[in-house]
Amino acid sequence: MVFSKKSRSKTFYFVVVLSVFLICVSSISARSERRHHDLMPAPNSISFVQGKLYVDAGFRIALTGYSEPRLQRAVDRLIRRLTIQTGIPFFPGNEEKNLEPSLVIQCSGPGEKVQSVGEDEFYTLDINPARAELMAPTPVGVLRGIETFLQLIKLDEVGFYVPAVHIEDEPRYPWRGLLIDVCRHWMPAEVIKRNLDGMAAVKLNILHWHLSEDQGFRVECRSFPKLHQVGSDGNYYTQKQIQEILEYAKDRGIRVVPEFDMPGHTTSWLVGYPELASAPGPYQIERKWGVIDSCMDPTKEELYEFLDAFLGEMTSLFPDVYFHIGGDEVNGNHWNQNPNITAFKRKQGMKDNHDLQVYFNQRVQAILQKYGKKMIGWDEIFHPDLPKDVVVQSWRGPEALAAIAREGYMGILSNGYYLDYILPASEHYTVDPLGRDAAALNSGKKVLILGGEACMWAEFVNPETIDSRIWPRTAAIAERFWSPSHVNDPEDMYRRLEILDGKLDLLGLNHNLNPSKMLQRLVGKNSVHPLRVLAEIVESVKRYTRPNTREYTQMTPLNRLVDAAKPESHAARKLENLVDELLKKNPRLNKNRFAIEDRLKEWRDNHVLLLPILESSYLLKEIIPLAQDVRDLADVGLRALKYLEYQQSPPKEWIKNAKKLLERPKKPESELIIQIVPAIRKLFEAAVSLEGTS
Amino acid sequence: MVFSKKSRSKTFYFVVVLSVFLICVSSISARSERRHHDLMPAPNSISFVQGKLYVDAGFRIALTGYSEPRLQRAVDRLIRRLTIQTGIPFFPGNEEKNLEPSLVIQCSGPGEKVQSVGEDEFYTLDINPARAELMAPTPVGVLRGIETFLQLIKLDEVGFYVPAVHIEDEPRYPWRGLLIDVCRHWMPAEVIKRNLDGMAAVKLNILHWHLSEDQGFRVECRSFPKLHQVGSDGNYYTQKQIQEILEYAKDRGIRVVPEFDMPGHTTSWLVGYPELASAPGPYQIERKWGVIDSCMDPTKEELYEFLDAFLGEMTSLFPDVYFHIGGDEVNGNHWNQNPNITAFKRKQGMKDNHDLQVYFNQRVQAILQKYGKKMIGWDEIFHPDLPKDVVVQSWRGPEALAAIAREGYMGILSNGYYLDYILPASEHYTVDPLGRDAAALNSGKKVLILGGEACMWAEFVNPETIDSRIWPRTAAIAERFWSPSHVNDPEDMYRRLEILDGKLDLLGLNHNLNPSKMLQRLVGKNSVHPLRVLAEIVESVKRYTRPNTREYTQMTPLNRLVDAAKPESHAARKLENLVDELLKKNPRLNKNRFAIEDRLKEWRDNHVLLLPILESSYLLKEIIPLAQDVRDLADVGLRALKYLEYQQSPPKEWIKNAKKLLERPKKPESELIIQIVPAIRKLFEAAVSLEGTS
Repeated sequence: MVFSKKSRSKTFYFVVVLSVFLICVSSISARSERRHHDLMPAPNSISFVQGKLYVDAGFRIALTGYSEPRLQRAVDRLIRRLTIQTGIPFFPGNEEKNLEPSLVIQCSGPGEKVQSVGEDEFYTLDINPARAELMAPTPVGVLRGIETFLQLIKLDEVGFYVPAVHIEDEPRYPWRGLLIDVCRHWMPAEVIKRNLDGMAAVKLNILHWHLSEDQGFRVECRSFPKLHQVGSDGNYYTQKQIQEILEYAKDRGIRVVPEFDMPGHTTSWLVGYPELASAPGPYQIERKWGVIDSCMDPTKEELYEFLDAFLGEMTSLFPDVYFHIGGDEVNGNHWNQNPNITAFKRKQGMKDNHDLQVYFNQRVQAILQKYGKKMIGWDEIFHPDLPKDVVVQSWRGPEALAAIAREGYMGILSNGYYLDYILPASEHYTVDPLGRDAAALNSGKKVLILGGEACMWAEFVNPETIDSRIWPRTAAIAERFWSPSHVNDPEDMYRRLEILDGKLDLLGLNHNLNPSKMLQRLVGKNSVHPLRVLAEIVESVKRYTRPNTREYTQMTPLNRLVDAAKPESHAARKLENLVDELLKKNPRLNKNRFAIEDRLKEWRDNHVLLLPILESSYLLKEIIPLAQDVRDLADVGLRALKYLEYQQSPPKEWIKNAKKLLERPKKPESELIIQIVPAIRKLFEAAVSLEGTS
Repeated sequence: MVFSKKSRSKTFYFVVVLSVFLICVSSISARSERRHHDLMPAPNSISFVQGKLYVDAGFRIALTGYSEPRLQRAVDRLIRRLTIQTGIPFFPGNEEKNLEPSLVIQCSGPGEKVQSVGEDEFYTLDINPARAELMAPTPVGVLRGIETFLQLIKLDEVGFYVPAVHIEDEPRYPWRGLLIDVCRHWMPAEVIKRNLDGMAAVKLNILHWHLSEDQGFRVECRSFPKLHQVGSDGNYYTQKQIQEILEYAKDRGIRVVPEFDMPGHTTSWLVGYPELASAPGPYQIERKWGVIDSCMDPTKEELYEFLDAFLGEMTSLFPDVYFHIGGDEVNGNHWNQNPNITAFKRKQGMKDNHDLQVYFNQRVQAILQKYGKKMIGWDEIFHPDLPKDVVVQSWRGPEALAAIAREGYMGILSNGYYLDYILPASEHYTVDPLGRDAAALNSGKKVLILGGEACMWAEFVNPETIDSRIWPRTAAIAERFWSPSHVNDPEDMYRRLEILDGKLDLLGLNHNLNPSKMLQRLVGKNSVHPLRVLAEIVESVKRYTRPNTREYTQMTPLNRLVDAAKPESHAARKLENLVDELLKKNPRLNKNRFAIEDRLKEWRDNHVLLLPILESSYLLKEIIPLAQDVRDLADVGLRALKYLEYQQSPPKEWIKNAKKLLERPKKPESELIIQIVPAIRKLFEAAVSLEGTS
C-alpha cells in the first residue's frame, strides 16, 4: 500500500477497548430503536446509545493530551459556532470555572508537520448524557470530529442537545479535493476562505487552487512581477494573502495544492513575457473561453531558466509536497506553425506534439524534484517515463484512471465531478473513483486510486454565484470520498443534504443568500415572490451548452435568471417523487393528489402576477415564453390529475396540444430548463393510458 | 453662528449658474410630470429632468479636480457596489480606455484634515441621458453624493439606469450620530464596520463609540493594561483595530467620538484598578444591567494622575476634537458611604454630590483641554462654569436641551432616538432636535442645537441581533437630521424605507438575514414557514419592560422569538392601513376586504401547522398562548368583516368573547406584543357599532 494508515498509537489502545464496551451498551439499549442520523458525510460507523447530552450555558470544553495553537484555535471556533447554532453565549472567562467539562478533546500527538496525503484523520466520538469525548491521534482527526459534533446538535422541548452516540470514523479515500478556478473569473480571498469553511464542514482535505490561466495570472510573483502586474487586471493574491489562506486552510486540516497550468493555458503569462511564447506577441489577457492556441515554447532553454526561478519562488511559497502543473489541452497549433519548433522536434526524433510535451514535462518535473516537490497534472501528462511518485488527475474518466493505476501510477478522479456541468447531486453521488473500470483492479493497484476532486471551473461563475454552484452539491461528492461505499441511497442523501444546507448558511456561505438577492435585483422594486415561485422549478441548461445561445466572455454579466436559479430544483424532484408514488397506487384515493394539485395550481396561477414583472425588466423579458410554458404545463398536469381522478379518458384535442407542449423544443434564449416537465409527462402519460379503459 | 457653513468656493460659482439653468430646464420638461423619488434621506432639493442615463458595462467614472487616496478608494467602492446592484462587471483595466466618462466626479479641495462638526458636506448631482456630474467642495461632499447616486439606480425594460435629475443637497444639522454601545454586549470590529457602511448610506456622520461601562472596558490601554486585560473578558479592540476602524470611518466621511464613561459606569475599570474606587474592592466585571453603585473617587489626586496618563494615551489614539466623558447616572451611594469623601465635600463647601461631580468634570475638562480636546457629556455634566465649547448630549429631553442652549451651550438630542426602546420608525421620525421647547429659541440659540444621535444601547442586543435593531429604523432618524423639516410624511417615509431596506441588505448588513436564521434555529429541523407567518405580526415589548419578565444579565441568551422578531411589524402596519381605508368607505364593496381576509385567514389557519412546532422547541413553548390568541384574534377579525359585509349586527355572546380577547392582559412570558390587535379592534368596533342599525 502506498499510503497505508498508520497503526493506532498506544495511547489509543484503551479507546478501542472503551469503544468495544460502548458498542455493546449501545447495541443493547438502542436495540429496539433503529435511528437514522443526519450526518454528512456519513461516518464509518455510528451507534446510538440511550440519552442526550444537553448543551447549555454551562457547557465547557477541555483540551487534554497533546496541544498546539491550532487546536486551541479550533476550540475557539467550536465555541463560536456553538453560539451561532444555539444562540447561547459561552464565556471563556466565566466565573464558574470549576465546572466539569462537557466535551473532552484528547489528541495524542502533533501529526505531520506538513500535512500529507498520508495524514491520519481517524477520530472517535463518544457521547453519553453526562459528557462527550472526542479522541484522535492527530489534530486533523480532532478537526474532523469537531465537525461531526457540530452536525449532531439538535433541539427538543428541553433544550439543545447532542444524542448519545459512539462514532468511529475515518475516510475511505485520502485525497478529497475541491478545485477552485480563480482565473476565468477572479475570486477574492474571502471567497476562498468561506469555501474552506464549507470544505472543512464536509471533511474535504484538499483545496486545488487553479491559479493561472489564459484569462488571468492570480499570484504576486516577485521574480517575474509582470506576471501579476499585467496578467491579472489587478486581481491577484499578494503573497501575504496567500500565506493567510494557507494558514486558514491548515487550521481546518486542508492541504492546498497550487496549480500553475503549463505549457498551454498560459496567455496571461505571455502578456508580460511574450519571449516565452511559441508565436510572436504581443499578447493580451484572453477574454474568451475555450482551448486557445497560445502556448509556451518548450524548445527554448530560456523557458527552463524562467521556470526554474519561477518554481523556486512558488515552491517555497506553497508548503504542500505536491505541485500541479496542469498540462491539459495543448492544441499544438502554434507549435506546428513555428519552424524552430518543428525543426527541434525533428532533430530530437519526436514523432508528435505529445512527445514534445513529454519532454517539457520531464524538464519541469526535474526542476520540481530539485525543489523537493512531487508533480501532479491532468491526464495529458501521463507517460511511462515519469517517476512513480507523480499523481495524475483524470478529467477524461474511469477508463483513463484505471489505465494509469495499472501502470503503477497514482491517480485521482475528477471526471464525473464537474460542478460547472450543473448536474444534480445524485448524479455525482453515483460516481466512485473505484467504480467502473477501476473496480476490476487488484488490491495492490486499487490503493493507487487516491480519491478525487470536485471541479469548480469558473467560466460561468463569479464571486456572487460560486457558492451556489459549489454548495450544497459538493457535500454529496465529499460523502462519496469519505464514507463507506455502501452509503449510497440518493433519497437519504437528499434528506441529509437539506439539513446540511442550513448549517452551511450558518457558516457564512452565500449559496442561498446570493440567489435570493439576485432574484430581487432582477425584479427591481417589484415584489420578488412570483419570480421565486418560478425560479424554484427551473435549472440552468446542462454541461457546456450555455455558449450555444450567446457569446460569453470574461466581461459578460452573470446576472440573469439562469445565474440566480439553483443548480438543482428540489421542488421538481419532490414533485416527481409525489407523482411516482401517486401513480403506483390508486390516484383517486391518494393523499399525494392534493399536494400535487396545490403545487401545480401555485405554478399556474403565479403567471398572472409574474407577467408584468417580466415585462418590466430587461433581464427578464427573455423568460416570458418559458413562464407561459410553465403555466401551460401546470395546467396539463392539473387536467391529467382530473382525468385520473375520474378515470376518464382525455379528449383527443387536449392530448394533441399537451403533447405538443411537452415536446416543444426548449426555449434556448433563457438557457433554462423547466424541471417539472418529467413529472408532468408522467401524469400526462398515465392519463393518456386511460384511453379506451373508460 | 457657531458652525456656519463655509461659503461656496469660487470653483463652485459656475455650478450654481449651471444649476439655475438646469432647474429652468427641468421645471419646463418635468412640468406635467411630478415624480416622487425613492431617496433616503430626502435631498434638500431635487428636480427631475426628462430622460435616463443607462448604466451598462461601458459605464466609466472620471475623478477630476482635487484628488486624494480617500477619493480613489471611494470610487473603487462605488464600482464594487455598482456591480453588486447591477450584476455587471466593470473592468478597471478594460481595453476600451477611450470611452467618455459616464460619471464625472469633481472635488474642489481637500476639506478638513480632521473632519469637524463644521465640515462642508454640500454636493450637487446633475444627471442627463449622456452623463452624470457629481460636484462637491470637499471629499466628504463627494461621499454623500455617491450614496445618492447609488440610491438612484433603477431597472426598466431597457436596462439599469439613473433618472435625469438635478440635486442640490446638504444637511440640516451638522451633528448626525449613531451611538453604539459595545460594552454591555461585546461587538467585534466587523459589526462596527458594516454599521459604518450603513451609516454612510444614510449620510450619518458621527459614530459615538461607547467604549467603557460597568460591564466591560473595550480598548487596549498601554498605560494601564489591566483595564483591557481583566476588565473585558478578552473582548476588546486592539489599538491596531481601532486605527483600522478610524480609517474605515474616515473613508466614509464619518467622525468617531469615543466615550469613556466616568466617574460612574466604571466597574470594569475598578476590577484592575480598585484604588480608583469610592468603596473598597475587590471588583468583578458587572453582569447585571442598571445603575450600579460603584464609582470613581473624585477626591483622590491619584485619580487625576491616572486620568491624565489615560487621557493622554486615548486622546492621541482618537483624532476627533470631541471626547465624550459620559458623566451620567452617578447614584452617589458609594460617595455617601465614604467618610473621606463626605469630609472632602464639607471642606470644599460642596452642598451635594452634583457639586462633587462638577468638580470632577472640571478637573477632567482641564486635562482634555491640555490635550487639545473639547469635552462632551450627558445632561448631568451641564454646569454654567464649563467653557462654552462643551457639548451636552441630552438623554433627558427637549426641555433640558432647550435650557442648555438658552445658557449658550451647544447641545445634541438623543431623547426620542433610543433604538433599544423598540419603537416604530414613525415615532422617532416625529422627534426633531429643534422641535418642542427648542422651537421657541431665537435663531442665535437655535444654531447651538447641533443635531442628534440615535442610541443603540446594548443590554438586549448582541452581534447577531444588533443590525436588526439599528436598521432600517435608523434611516428614519437620519432623514430627520439631514432633510428639510417639511419632509415629514410617515407614509412616504415607510415607502422609501422599504426600498432602502433592500439596499442595506446589499451592503452586507444582517438586519434581515440574521432574524431569518434565528427563526430557523428556533424550529430546529422543522419547517420555518409557520413561525415566519407568526413572527411577521409580533413585536418585542417596548421600552425597558423586558426585565419585568425574567432576570437578564450579560450571560442571558438572546435567542428567543422576541429577539428574532423585527422591531416593527410592517405587516401589521399595512393591515391597519387597509382597515382604516376600508372603514372610511363602504366595507361591502371595498376591494381591501379581500386583502384583509386573505391575511387574516393566513394567520388563523397557520396555527394548526405552528402548534406542533412550538411544542417541540424549548425556546418556543412559551409562545403557545400567544399563538392561540393570534388565531382567535384573526377569527374575530374575519367574523367582524362578515358582519360588516352583510351589515348584520353581531350576536351578544360573540361580542362578549371578542371583547375579552381584545382586552386580555398581555402574555408577558413571551415578551411579545401581538401587533395586529389595533386593526382587529377597529374591525370589531365597526361591527359592534352595527348594533341596532340592522
